[in-house]
Amino acid sequence: MTTQTELFREISEQPAALARFLDAESANVARIAAQINRAGVKYVTIAARGTSDNAATYAKYVFASFNRLPVALATPSLYTVYQTPPRLDGSLVIGISQSGESPDIVAVLEEARKQGAPTLAITNFADSPLARAVDNVILQHAGEEKTIAATKTYTTQLCALALLSTALADDRARRAELDAVPDAIARTLSLSDAAEDVASRWAIATTMLVIGRGYNYATAFEIALKLKELAYVTAEPFSSADFLHGPIAVIQGGYPVLIIAPRGRVFDDLLDVARQLKSRGADLVVISDALDALALSRAPLALPVALPEWLSPLVAVVPGQLLAHHLTRTKGYDPDHPRGLTKVTKTL
Amino acid sequence: MTTQTELFREISEQPAALARFLDAESANVARIAAQINRAGVKYVTIAARGTSDNAATYAKYVFASFNRLPVALATPSLYTVYQTPPRLDGSLVIGISQSGESPDIVAVLEEARKQGAPTLAITNFADSPLARAVDNVILQHAGEEKTIAATKTYTTQLCALALLSTALADDRARRAELDAVPDAIARTLSLSDAAEDVASRWAIATTMLVIGRGYNYATAFEIALKLKELAYVTAEPFSSADFLHGPIAVIQGGYPVLIIAPRGRVFDDLLDVARQLKSRGADLVVISDALDALALSRAPLALPVALPEWLSPLVAVVPGQLLAHHLTRTKGYDPDHPRGLTKVTKTL
Repeated sequence: MTTQTELFREISEQPAALARFLDAESANVARIAAQINRAGVKYVTIAARGTSDNAATYAKYVFASFNRLPVALATPSLYTVYQTPPRLDGSLVIGISQSGESPDIVAVLEEARKQGAPTLAITNFADSPLARAVDNVILQHAGEEKTIAATKTYTTQLCALALLSTALADDRARRAELDAVPDAIARTLSLSDAAEDVASRWAIATTMLVIGRGYNYATAFEIALKLKELAYVTAEPFSSADFLHGPIAVIQGGYPVLIIAPRGRVFDDLLDVARQLKSRGADLVVISDALDALALSRAPLALPVALPEWLSPLVAVVPGQLLAHHLTRTKGYDPDHPRGLTKVTKTL
Repeated sequence: MTTQTELFREISEQPAALARFLDAESANVARIAAQINRAGVKYVTIAARGTSDNAATYAKYVFASFNRLPVALATPSLYTVYQTPPRLDGSLVIGISQSGESPDIVAVLEEARKQGAPTLAITNFADSPLARAVDNVILQHAGEEKTIAATKTYTTQLCALALLSTALADDRARRAELDAVPDAIARTLSLSDAAEDVASRWAIATTMLVIGRGYNYATAFEIALKLKELAYVTAEPFSSADFLHGPIAVIQGGYPVLIIAPRGRVFDDLLDVARQLKSRGADLVVISDALDALALSRAPLALPVALPEWLSPLVAVVPGQLLAHHLTRTKGYDPDHPRGLTKVTKTL
C-alpha cells in the first residue's frame, strides 16, 4: 500500500517537529518555570479538549510525580454556559490548544487572568486568541498541521509538558533524557508495516478497546480517539484499574483489544489484565518493549527503543497513530479528510 | 415480562433509600460542613472508581457552581503503584466508595490525613477501612446492595454530595429542593414500560453512544457503565461538547444514541447535537422533560417530574438504569449476576 497521504507525512514529521521544539523553546520554558516557581502555586488547572485533553491527562502524572503538583482538569462549561467559574487562587492555569481558537478554553484562561492566577498557553499559534489571553506562551513549533487528526501537535504538546516539568524541578538528568525522544520516535516509525498487519487483521472490527494505565492512560485515550475519528471504529479507552470494575464484562471471544504496556511501574498490572483478557479469548494486540507482554499478542507491536517510563507515551502513541492511519486506508476511507469533522471546533 | 429481579427491586428502593439518607444525615452533614468551612480549603480532591467516580464528576459541577470550589479527581496510582503522591495542602480530600474497601482509594485518604489535609468519606459502611481512615464520614444509608451493578448506592452518593454543597453554602432554598427528590424518583420509576420498549428496539445492538453535558455528563457515564456491565454492550459516554471534536465521525444510519437532555443551561447545546445526529440517521432515544427534545426521539423517555437542573441527574439516571436492566433481560442475561464481576474490586 502506498502511504503517501498527508497524514502519514505528518506522523513521519514528528521527530523533526520535536527536535525543533526542544531547540526553540528550552530557554523560554526555563524562564517561565522560574516565574511559576516564584508564584508558589499549590496545584495546576488545565483547560483543554479532544487531543489536547489527552495531553492534559499525561500532565497529571508528570506534574504529580516530579513536581508534587496535583492537576485539576477544568470544566469549561462552568465558565461559559453556566457562568459560575470556581475560585482559582493557589492555582497555575494552563490552556492547551494547537489552534488556540477554542472559545471555551480561551474563556477559562481569561477568567483565570481576571482572578489574578498565573496563566500559560501551550499552542501552535503565537497570534491566537489563547496566546493573547495569557501571561506566558509555550509555542509548539509543530509546523502547520494540514490534516484534521492531530498527531505531531499531540506529541509536541506532551513534549512541552515534559519540558516544563523538568524546568520547574531544575532536573538536568530528566532534561537530558528528553533529548533522546526525537530519535526514539524516528526509530518507532519502523513499526509501520507491523501496524499494517494489525489493520488487515482488524479490518472488519466495529468496536475495540484500548487499555493503558499510569503515564500511558493518556496514550490509550489518544489512540482510541484516532481510531474513532479516522477509521470510524467505536474504540473505547480504559485504565486497566477501572477496566476490572465492570467493563471487562463485555469481553467475548475475538474481541479486539489494544494494550499499551511499555515497561514501568504499572507493567505487571497490565500484564495481569492482558492474561485475563487472553483467557477470555480476546484478540490482543500489545504495544510494548517487553517480550513477556509481546508474547501474549498474536500481532505484537514491539517498541524498538525503551525510553524511561515518564517519556514512554511519546513513543507508545506512534504505532497507534500508524494503526489508525492504515486501518482507515484498509477500510477504504480517506485519512486526510475524515467525514463530518473540522480542524478547529469552536465549542462554547 | 416479570421484573422481580433483585436489581429491579434495588432500583425501586431508591426513593426510600434517599428519604432515609436525608433524614439520617442532614444534621451530621451540617456539622461536617461547618468544620470544612473553618478549614478554608481552596479546592477539593476526590478519590473514587467506577460508579463512585461518576458521582465525583457530578460533584465537579455542584461544588464549582454553588461553592466556587474547583474539584480535582485524584489519580490513585500516584499514591499506590508510583508512590509519588502530590502535595495536598489547601485541599479537602473526599473518598467515595460504597464498600469503603478499595485499597487504592483508602491509600489516597491515608496520605491526605498524613499530610494534614481535611478528609471525608462517603460510604455505605461505617466500619469500612475507608471510614476508619478519615476525619469525617457521611453514611449513605442505602441498605445492603446485593447485586453487583450499583444503583441505589449511586443516587445516595449524588444526594450526599448535593446535601454537602447546600450545607457548605448554608443554602436553605436548595436544601428544600433536595427534599423533593425521593418522590420525583418514585414517579420516574413509571418509565419502566417505556424503557422496556427501547430495550426491544435495541436488543441486537452491540454498540451505543450515551451523550450528556454539564450536570448530566455524570449521568451519561453512569448509564454507559450500567449498559456495559449488565447488558455487555460497548456503550461509550460523551459530553456533547467533546463529541463534535472527533467522535461524531463514527455515526452512521441506525446507530443507537441515548441523549440525556433535561431542561437547563446546556439544553440548547444538546438539542443541537440531537438534531445533527438525527440528520446523520442515528437512532435517537432522548431522556428529557422537554417536548422539543423528546420529539426528536422515536422512543422517548419523558421524565414525569422536572427538577431544578442541579438535581436532574438524580432522576435522569433512572430510565437508564431501567433500560440497562430490561436490555439485559431481553438479551437473555441475568441482571443479578453479570459475568466476571465481583461487588468489591480491590485495585492497588
